[in-house]
Amino acid sequence: MKFSANSVWENKDQYDVAVIGAGHAGCEAALACARLGFRTIVFTVSVDSIALMPCNPNIGGTSKGHLVREVDALGGEMGKVIDRTFIQSKMLNKSKGPAVHSLRAQADKAFYSRTMRQVLESQENLEIKQAEVVNILTEDVDGRKKVTGVQTYSGAVFRCQAVVLCTGTYLKARCIYGDVSTNTGPNGLQAANYLTECLKDLGVKMNRFKTGTPARIDRNTVDFSKMEEQKGDERIVPFSFTTDPESIQKDQVSCWLTYTNERTHEIIRKNLDRSPLFSGMIEGTGPRYCPSIEDKVVKFADKSRHQVFIEPEGLETNEMYIGGMSSSLPEDVQYEMYRSVPGLEHVKIVRNAYAIEYDCIDARQLRPTLEFRNIDGLFSGGQFNGSSGYEEAAAQGLLAGINAARKLQGKEGVILDRSEAYIGVLVDDLVTKESHEPYRMMTSRAEYRLLLRQDNADQRLTAKGYEIGLIDQERYERLLKKEKLIETEMERLKKTYVGTTEEVQKLLEENGSTPLTSGSNLAELVRRPELSYEILSPLDHNRPEFPNDLREEVQEQVNINIKYEGYISRQKKQVEQFKKMESKKIPENIDYDQVKSLRIEAVQKLKEYQPVSVGQASRISGVSPADISVLLVYMEQLKSNR
Amino acid sequence: MKFSANSVWENKDQYDVAVIGAGHAGCEAALACARLGFRTIVFTVSVDSIALMPCNPNIGGTSKGHLVREVDALGGEMGKVIDRTFIQSKMLNKSKGPAVHSLRAQADKAFYSRTMRQVLESQENLEIKQAEVVNILTEDVDGRKKVTGVQTYSGAVFRCQAVVLCTGTYLKARCIYGDVSTNTGPNGLQAANYLTECLKDLGVKMNRFKTGTPARIDRNTVDFSKMEEQKGDERIVPFSFTTDPESIQKDQVSCWLTYTNERTHEIIRKNLDRSPLFSGMIEGTGPRYCPSIEDKVVKFADKSRHQVFIEPEGLETNEMYIGGMSSSLPEDVQYEMYRSVPGLEHVKIVRNAYAIEYDCIDARQLRPTLEFRNIDGLFSGGQFNGSSGYEEAAAQGLLAGINAARKLQGKEGVILDRSEAYIGVLVDDLVTKESHEPYRMMTSRAEYRLLLRQDNADQRLTAKGYEIGLIDQERYERLLKKEKLIETEMERLKKTYVGTTEEVQKLLEENGSTPLTSGSNLAELVRRPELSYEILSPLDHNRPEFPNDLREEVQEQVNINIKYEGYISRQKKQVEQFKKMESKKIPENIDYDQVKSLRIEAVQKLKEYQPVSVGQASRISGVSPADISVLLVYMEQLKSNR
Repeated sequence: MKFSANSVWENKDQYDVAVIGAGHAGCEAALACARLGFRTIVFTVSVDSIALMPCNPNIGGTSKGHLVREVDALGGEMGKVIDRTFIQSKMLNKSKGPAVHSLRAQADKAFYSRTMRQVLESQENLEIKQAEVVNILTEDVDGRKKVTGVQTYSGAVFRCQAVVLCTGTYLKARCIYGDVSTNTGPNGLQAANYLTECLKDLGVKMNRFKTGTPARIDRNTVDFSKMEEQKGDERIVPFSFTTDPESIQKDQVSCWLTYTNERTHEIIRKNLDRSPLFSGMIEGTGPRYCPSIEDKVVKFADKSRHQVFIEPEGLETNEMYIGGMSSSLPEDVQYEMYRSVPGLEHVKIVRNAYAIEYDCIDARQLRPTLEFRNIDGLFSGGQFNGSSGYEEAAAQGLLAGINAARKLQGKEGVILDRSEAYIGVLVDDLVTKESHEPYRMMTSRAEYRLLLRQDNADQRLTAKGYEIGLIDQERYERLLKKEKLIETEMERLKKTYVGTTEEVQKLLEENGSTPLTSGSNLAELVRRPELSYEILSPLDHNRPEFPNDLREEVQEQVNINIKYEGYISRQKKQVEQFKKMESKKIPENIDYDQVKSLRIEAVQKLKEYQPVSVGQASRISGVSPADISVLLVYMEQLKSNR
Repeated sequence: MKFSANSVWENKDQYDVAVIGAGHAGCEAALACARLGFRTIVFTVSVDSIALMPCNPNIGGTSKGHLVREVDALGGEMGKVIDRTFIQSKMLNKSKGPAVHSLRAQADKAFYSRTMRQVLESQENLEIKQAEVVNILTEDVDGRKKVTGVQTYSGAVFRCQAVVLCTGTYLKARCIYGDVSTNTGPNGLQAANYLTECLKDLGVKMNRFKTGTPARIDRNTVDFSKMEEQKGDERIVPFSFTTDPESIQKDQVSCWLTYTNERTHEIIRKNLDRSPLFSGMIEGTGPRYCPSIEDKVVKFADKSRHQVFIEPEGLETNEMYIGGMSSSLPEDVQYEMYRSVPGLEHVKIVRNAYAIEYDCIDARQLRPTLEFRNIDGLFSGGQFNGSSGYEEAAAQGLLAGINAARKLQGKEGVILDRSEAYIGVLVDDLVTKESHEPYRMMTSRAEYRLLLRQDNADQRLTAKGYEIGLIDQERYERLLKKEKLIETEMERLKKTYVGTTEEVQKLLEENGSTPLTSGSNLAELVRRPELSYEILSPLDHNRPEFPNDLREEVQEQVNINIKYEGYISRQKKQVEQFKKMESKKIPENIDYDQVKSLRIEAVQKLKEYQPVSVGQASRISGVSPADISVLLVYMEQLKSNR
């Protein structure tokens, strides 16, 4: 049953796009649409919770840092805002290869939220409206549903041509711990209770997922002397390619590492029967890769301890986050369990841990443009699509916003493929693979991760952002200049030879490298694992001066590109193969029943998913390589018949 | 029916006082208790809404400024926080006498809220807990109920000896505009739905009041060229006696004045049948002195326009407040009505205006210490007591907190009387007079307002604050020093004579004052309306140098005290009379049935109110002067019998 307002009225202001929700997805979607010139209205149940971080107080992290860089490279906002509001920054996995280097910053949550709100408030074409959207309005055009507007709880109708759903964890949200259950969104905020029914009426298939968060504690009651201090990097690297690194070098706050122990686990085990997770009170499925502490204790029964990170929630509050110990155990168990951890013996809990259940969708109903296949003009992004994480949300929100705008521009939708971006991997996974739990990005999900590095996101995506219209001329030209410098420098290195001089051998020896037996070009030497572009600098007498604002970036790219040239070119060949299949577009009006020899299961799946390319078709579970061959033959016939 | 949790557990941490609610009353109450050494826990449904300003973005104003000064003089926090977070400041009524001078500051709402939160977080003995309190726990001791703790929604029990109720507008709150109604607290925050039933079970008589707020609009859509700019004062005066005036001189933002017009009123009149106020949908009674725009249009039908103030909500947001146009009209009418106002023709509404209904009490159930007469250890303050306004709330919260602490100290409660403080007037009115609507402070409610000035709040109350323990030695000594300087200077002026010299006559002439016919002391000259202590400075050759930090204050006091000496001493005589009756304490165990010749109505009222003094008894409606005479005679007999 759709929500029915007592009285209906039509707001006569003109809008092109309505974005529902102003979390990390909604903010990016709304900004993208407005920046592309469309009159955009973004609805939120609370203006005060724009860009709220209801869980962990950080942005980025393994693979998530890649997403933030990609969002930035395409012209999104998350990277810029975290660069202005972080309180600690760290490049993770620096001891490993560059593919898995990932930036993570601790945020001042409240500052992040109000900074993003200010960006939205200052954006031309963008209106913020505090209201709960209860209905998506549609009309039937040639047998297809088409979005015509939205309606709020008060009965107000706002007409528009595209809607982006970014409802996060708010749809029919329920917060739970122990036997306590309240029908609220995260942190006691209002849930959105009506939109689900409207979506069901529109034929949308809904899922119910679950996630959770740990307690927030009072810093004054923590004994840090029993914990290991976790400091930020000496040299801070920005998220955004537009941020001057010099401008963000500052004093940082620390996080703290401690551990659970057998007593903690014993407390949890003896109270498992009181956990809503195990009692069946929670119906939704939770994120496999972000489990609650009770999940961890059960699933990894042999582990005698788990890491616990105590992280500040901001500079202006004493509240701290207990990373690694999200829970929905009863309140009394929470006190006992947290107080069993070294340093937390006398801890005071400001906010209890809780699990949250919410309505979301099976994202296989979406095209790779994040538009619903069966509803024209309806897009969606973020946790509503079954993902988890602020960064995953922002990435989808940006793409959904871009494609809502493209639709109104009459242009083809932007699809990022798995070889171009983590965003491509994320979206392809979401819309192609069945998911029984909130989807989390991981570097292991990317086939071509040596190409999809966080450091080269601009080279992968900024030209596309420019073409879309979210990157300005100046930024685009800076990229071209940077690429030119990298290319020139790489060529120069390949042509710069050094001999077996004393200077050379000494430097090699000092860096634990074997001496040269004959002359070598510098590129060859850069490739040695123990050496680098920087180390070889003393031997490189004609090394050019790079412009100040590009120096660090160019040097890093030259080093990585040369060092991994072999692997990179191998992966590029694989990408070529991959691209072949991706570029074989399947006509929208294809009638799979006409494709002889296609197995029935394949026909059903292909009809359901309507893949845009043979590549996507090949990744659908239930479509076999043989089916793909049949499909390719059929498509050839179609082409020659035309 | 009291709320019954699924499971109950007892938090074993030790507490003395629980404060329920962390708005303006709750913050003062909690800080007072903690500062007086008691282990205090303050509950809030959302830590993010501590010290929230859900309505107007300012602190102070006529008579309210007095309250803030008094709160500060007693050792409260409001004045200090607004001094750190204001964005515009103005001393109102400066063209009138000093009794009605009132300070008002525009606040950066979000900054105010997080600054107060930080004060709470940093306060020793004070714990903040995000939880909804559902039950007050009591035991029966000698036939009287006595507080033993509170219980939260999760079933957790927190034992304590005193509870201060500061639930504001959250109890069974309902927000309404047009035919839209939601069961939420202000601005969509969670309501507290269970405590009312518990209070009823404890025999507390509940009221239901209503208040309202205007829409918030987007600054970018306002045409300020059609409005009058309202700037702050050139010289900013702080609220707190502890704030160095030099430290708060800064750039200020402007407010803007515009007006409603006949079209606005016509729009409202033609939609009155859709107003929940007039349709009967709203049951609670609203504040007479803070009416909605539809109320104003109906009640003052002959007025062709009403003032409208457009005020910023803070420095970090574009939202603005429409002062003077609170409303609960339907959303479409709100758009039409606001857009009829010059400068708002194209305004975008970020948050709709709404009315809010909430449960509160008939405060006549309280002693003047703000403790419930029939429940030991249960105190209450703020909007829950039937008042309106942040400042009224803070004042009561402070007093309730102080008296909760005094109770645990085994000391007599602090009662401020009507001759000492606006807080005294406020509390006496609340606990003695029946109120059918939210009570708002006004200077006209104070009998002795020439004594109860905002400028002398420290001289009236800081010694008391010191005795209570909320004012430290240094601040107390500063007061003594200031008083000494004032006294000495006043005496010096009375003894300093000027003759009919050319210098004197010239200065008098220049200031439009009649020349002297014979010598005069300077005090006499200060009394002339056209002259002042400052103006006479050139004639006063032996004027002392005051310490820097006291100069402005001492000079102001000397000027006012001398100028109004006659009026002041007359009012002091009236106060003596008043004090006589206030000091006649009525024994707690008095049996009014034994007082012969007392009228039945008086017996009933006196039994119900249990006034603490003959003075309070005389202000109870239904107790006549004849009844008071009878009572006085009876009390004399009692005394001589003993």
